[in-house]
Amino acid sequence: MFMMNDILENKQIARIAGKFHKAPHRMNDIHETDAEIVDLGTTSEKYLAITTDALVEEISSGLYEDPSLIGWMLAMANFSDLAAVGADPLGLLIAVTCAPSHDDTFLDQLSSGISDACDRLGTFVLGGDTNQGQSLMLCGTAVGTVPKSRVMRRVGASPNDKLYLTAPAGLGNVYAFLRLARKDNGLPQGLYKPVARISEGKMIRQFASCCMDTSDGVIHTIDTLMRLNHRRFILDACWEKTVHPFALKVCRAQGFPAWLVLAAIHGEFELCFTVEPRKEEEFLRAAERTGWTPILIGEVNEGEGVFIRSGDKAVRVDSAAIRNLADEAGSDPAAYIKHLLEVAHAVDL
Amino acid sequence: MFMMNDILENKQIARIAGKFHKAPHRMNDIHETDAEIVDLGTTSEKYLAITTDALVEEISSGLYEDPSLIGWMLAMANFSDLAAVGADPLGLLIAVTCAPSHDDTFLDQLSSGISDACDRLGTFVLGGDTNQGQSLMLCGTAVGTVPKSRVMRRVGASPNDKLYLTAPAGLGNVYAFLRLARKDNGLPQGLYKPVARISEGKMIRQFASCCMDTSDGVIHTIDTLMRLNHRRFILDACWEKTVHPFALKVCRAQGFPAWLVLAAIHGEFELCFTVEPRKEEEFLRAAERTGWTPILIGEVNEGEGVFIRSGDKAVRVDSAAIRNLADEAGSDPAAYIKHLLEVAHAVDL
Repeated sequence: MFMMNDILENKQIARIAGKFHKAPHRMNDIHETDAEIVDLGTTSEKYLAITTDALVEEISSGLYEDPSLIGWMLAMANFSDLAAVGADPLGLLIAVTCAPSHDDTFLDQLSSGISDACDRLGTFVLGGDTNQGQSLMLCGTAVGTVPKSRVMRRVGASPNDKLYLTAPAGLGNVYAFLRLARKDNGLPQGLYKPVARISEGKMIRQFASCCMDTSDGVIHTIDTLMRLNHRRFILDACWEKTVHPFALKVCRAQGFPAWLVLAAIHGEFELCFTVEPRKEEEFLRAAERTGWTPILIGEVNEGEGVFIRSGDKAVRVDSAAIRNLADEAGSDPAAYIKHLLEVAHAVDL
Repeated sequence: MFMMNDILENKQIARIAGKFHKAPHRMNDIHETDAEIVDLGTTSEKYLAITTDALVEEISSGLYEDPSLIGWMLAMANFSDLAAVGADPLGLLIAVTCAPSHDDTFLDQLSSGISDACDRLGTFVLGGDTNQGQSLMLCGTAVGTVPKSRVMRRVGASPNDKLYLTAPAGLGNVYAFLRLARKDNGLPQGLYKPVARISEGKMIRQFASCCMDTSDGVIHTIDTLMRLNHRRFILDACWEKTVHPFALKVCRAQGFPAWLVLAAIHGEFELCFTVEPRKEEEFLRAAERTGWTPILIGEVNEGEGVFIRSGDKAVRVDSAAIRNLADEAGSDPAAYIKHLLEVAHAVDL
């Protein structure tokens, strides 16, 4: 049996959250949704969706340095959790702690990044809190509403459901690899500026049986869906379709298996979701009408575990080991990549 | 003319928030409310009230060290902003960043403090985010609802309105003085565990013309109300009534003017509010029925400025100078107290 607490991060969450009483008006269990779902106790046909996300390791590691990218990511990381439950955003709250070294130019660019991200999604900063500290600390809270009958959860997948991704993934990990292991400036200018899938989420919510964003990487997401649904999740080894072209190019140049950019921990803000076969045709037609092509990346079967399938062969991936690497390797990118390659080479496709 | 941007803290807020477009569904201007007021776009008779507050200086300065007090204060600071707009809480979201030095015992006590505070107010932790970092960082977001016709704002005071406080204040600053300047353990065990005035806020919202919490000290609050309302705010020098007995005792022992514990920056979670004379009797009767005695501390007049009145004499207090001291004196408690005493001695009562 695959358990949520096989994952080290989840043990810490359980430690902190173990004492809290569940609110009768919170409509989700822990881990069950990307954002919390709250019944407002009114006659409204909508739930409140709310989520909080701080940027910590991403700043302290040097992964994000450009203040406008930092602001952009703070907003998008939070809105992506709203997208994954199918919510319409009401806006963002921000808590900004600056050090004396952060001058007006830095603050201007940071707030431009936040503002641009909100503009891009047609939403707003609602308010915030400012503090003085020793280093930059940023915390966001995104809030929105979702029709009660359309809330997407991480649970609900059935055998034979099709597994989809909003778009090819892997740019997040390639960005992290280039910046942290290669010490260059990351991707070509402007290539890495992910957009939370709010509009896709509002379409997907009409069809999906479960949904989660890929903010910690695609394999992480599939591993979580597998543990919560107690189903086998099968990822097809069609990397030309599933992996972003630039990420594929970097993998080839480095001699990495292509799926490694789906496995490492710095994801992007795609949505990974399942659709029942009977709804698939209508879903694809609806997507096509908006000019969007969802990516079919695999399917759900009876059983448990995460598998990669190539032709008739399906190989189990130790997705718990992959997920726990980030906690075990600490903040050493070279050690992290080395361990990740070891796990990857054990998958004999 | 007294301007909000005479206050250094407000300049930083303006710098960061200047780029943001105002959401059409945000029902308050910046600085106008303790929590943001959001129209949910439904037929609901309630607005959403939401606020975010990080604990930064309070931890880095050593002001809060006991993890259960840290957790308690994180929750109460956020709920106090809900109390000040008259909201009923739905719950709290928390973003917790721990360092490797924070062991399980620390985390247990921290989460107990948060949980106890929510229990005390009959509310809940709704969700959160955990991260690993170099030091402890905590950010909270409190969310609630408030009847549309009952939202309390910081604006709305008229000449002759009576100025009230939910209870005698000053314990917050005495706690900070004893811990930071005296290096002892603060107040006698258990004396400093402030409770956000949620239940009082729900009564006050039926009567008040404006309201704000005292989380940065009473003088800070009155200064803000004065600037936003463009009225004169007069505080009566009846310190036996306005200042907490333990705080009075410490002031006497130290030779401080009693109102200094209302002027320094570490407040508590009382509500400071104004009531029109014609509503005062009904307000007091309603309070009495619940066994609560609001403290009459002064009144609102024509004009501007913050004044302290003793008998027939009213002396203006340079409340901008007092507020800016915290930014100017940095993190040196002795320098802060010295400057504060200089400002206080210029007030000749």
